[in-house]
Amino acid sequence: MNEFGLIKHFFQSLSQPDASVIVDSGDDAAIVTVAKGYQLAISTDALVSGVHFLPQWDGYDVAIKSLAVNLSDMAAMGAIPKWVNIALCLPDKDMVWLERFSLGLADMLSQYKVSLIGGDLTQGPLTIAVTIQGWVANDKYLTRSQASVGDSIFVTGTLGAAKLAVENLQQCRLSDADFEHIMNKLQHPVPRIEHGQVLIDYASAAIDISDGLKADLNHICKGSGVGATLYREAIPVDQVLKRNKPNSCIEDALSGGDDYELCFCVSQSNKHSMEQALKAQNLPYYEIGCIEQQPGLRLQDNSGYCIPIKPDGYQHFDG
Amino acid sequence: MNEFGLIKHFFQSLSQPDASVIVDSGDDAAIVTVAKGYQLAISTDALVSGVHFLPQWDGYDVAIKSLAVNLSDMAAMGAIPKWVNIALCLPDKDMVWLERFSLGLADMLSQYKVSLIGGDLTQGPLTIAVTIQGWVANDKYLTRSQASVGDSIFVTGTLGAAKLAVENLQQCRLSDADFEHIMNKLQHPVPRIEHGQVLIDYASAAIDISDGLKADLNHICKGSGVGATLYREAIPVDQVLKRNKPNSCIEDALSGGDDYELCFCVSQSNKHSMEQALKAQNLPYYEIGCIEQQPGLRLQDNSGYCIPIKPDGYQHFDG
Repeated sequence: MNEFGLIKHFFQSLSQPDASVIVDSGDDAAIVTVAKGYQLAISTDALVSGVHFLPQWDGYDVAIKSLAVNLSDMAAMGAIPKWVNIALCLPDKDMVWLERFSLGLADMLSQYKVSLIGGDLTQGPLTIAVTIQGWVANDKYLTRSQASVGDSIFVTGTLGAAKLAVENLQQCRLSDADFEHIMNKLQHPVPRIEHGQVLIDYASAAIDISDGLKADLNHICKGSGVGATLYREAIPVDQVLKRNKPNSCIEDALSGGDDYELCFCVSQSNKHSMEQALKAQNLPYYEIGCIEQQPGLRLQDNSGYCIPIKPDGYQHFDG
Repeated sequence: MNEFGLIKHFFQSLSQPDASVIVDSGDDAAIVTVAKGYQLAISTDALVSGVHFLPQWDGYDVAIKSLAVNLSDMAAMGAIPKWVNIALCLPDKDMVWLERFSLGLADMLSQYKVSLIGGDLTQGPLTIAVTIQGWVANDKYLTRSQASVGDSIFVTGTLGAAKLAVENLQQCRLSDADFEHIMNKLQHPVPRIEHGQVLIDYASAAIDISDGLKADLNHICKGSGVGATLYREAIPVDQVLKRNKPNSCIEDALSGGDDYELCFCVSQSNKHSMEQALKAQNLPYYEIGCIEQQPGLRLQDNSGYCIPIKPDGYQHFDG
């Protein structure tokens, strides 16, 4: 089975019927229709073996994570995900891996109602580059640049589990149950699409936490020309992280990337309505700080004592 | 300089003002508007170092080729290219390579009036995955599946030079001038966007020749449920190929990929008007065969003698 055979066998059947897709994968390009009154949100994220995941990971988990990190970008814009293109570069014809990858892909596509409209399969070092496209009602999207002084800062879930998982990848010092919990957070992050759909009506700014809360909140602050204070005791730290690293768990929750929760800002006038709307859908949220005029990030404890936070996070080509 | 610094230094300035781009790269996703009455054509093609180009290639040439092969997919659909996303995976912080890559990118973006709306920069084995998006007027696009018995088959330019270049990459047995000519064809293929814009009014089917004429024409035939006969003496063979390999040049022109000319089919009733329209814009074209009911591909010489062609082409994971 060669390139075209593999595509046909593992990927062709994943195309789901969708009225917006006029010409499906299999031609030089797909042709799609954008509904009237909508704009497009477009984003690309690539995963590299040995950097974003381990070579020995099950193809299923690689597919889940590849889609999840891209869906998370749609969530952060308040967009409804619609179509994906996948450039898969594979070292060899590993039929088991491909079967598992295509299964993970199928699960994500059907769960999030997204169509696979094209891609590319090449032979080479294992990398997966996904481009995702979604819809937003005209001019109704969330950016990083509209946070205002006085806004409350929220996150959509607990933080730090994925960082603990990365630390324990080579040599695990945790119980089986704890390891399973944190590996699930690392491999199967849940893109907060439903949150995004609520937040477009209330939030002033949003970002997904891929590089760590302090690095990503710093993007909002820089983009909006403001600063922020976080409340130390309000940071929602993952339970397993807290139990296993009681002394450094807050620092880990602030710096750990890969959790893919959303961080967002809401004005005081919108706050109550937003909380009601999130509660109505059983969507979690945690208020963790406030936007201030003074540039930079600070961490404040219950006694009011404040220390500056260095807004570093994971970066490629660092140092 | 880390990931974000590199993006800012080499890529941020490449964003061109374009009324269709509402939110530019730099947020979680770009936001774009599709003009009323238009649909979107979307395609992804990845280039892998050591497979699609050599590791020692100048970043400028890699950028040109990465964009050209994707633009070529837009040409084959008759689409007007609009936006690109680029996932660049780079082994190390090679500032010279990045400078050259960004220069090549800038040249292509400005020449084809395309906006870079997002991307991803990661550390790992050298690969470039590009997703390109273009516009077509509603329901006005070219596919592989509408060729009809009696159509004439055309190509947009000479064939085989890129294959000769690949053969001479390791050890060159050609004159400097000849080598420069064929390397230019391999590294800087010209996407036939202008042809595509003419052909949407006349052609029944089109494809870009990336895997070789016989393999790609076979895609049209299979997609359209027809067969084809090519005229041996009418195949436009690259001059340098003809001079250097007089005995096998036709076979090379039929099988060589990477030229990125278009192959297209036109009914007899549209043929004359199409030729006039292409001539009016000084766009080259060569009539090379005809579509027939009998499945498969055949090559016919001037005496009328016909042999079957095996429609193989380059495929990843072959054998």
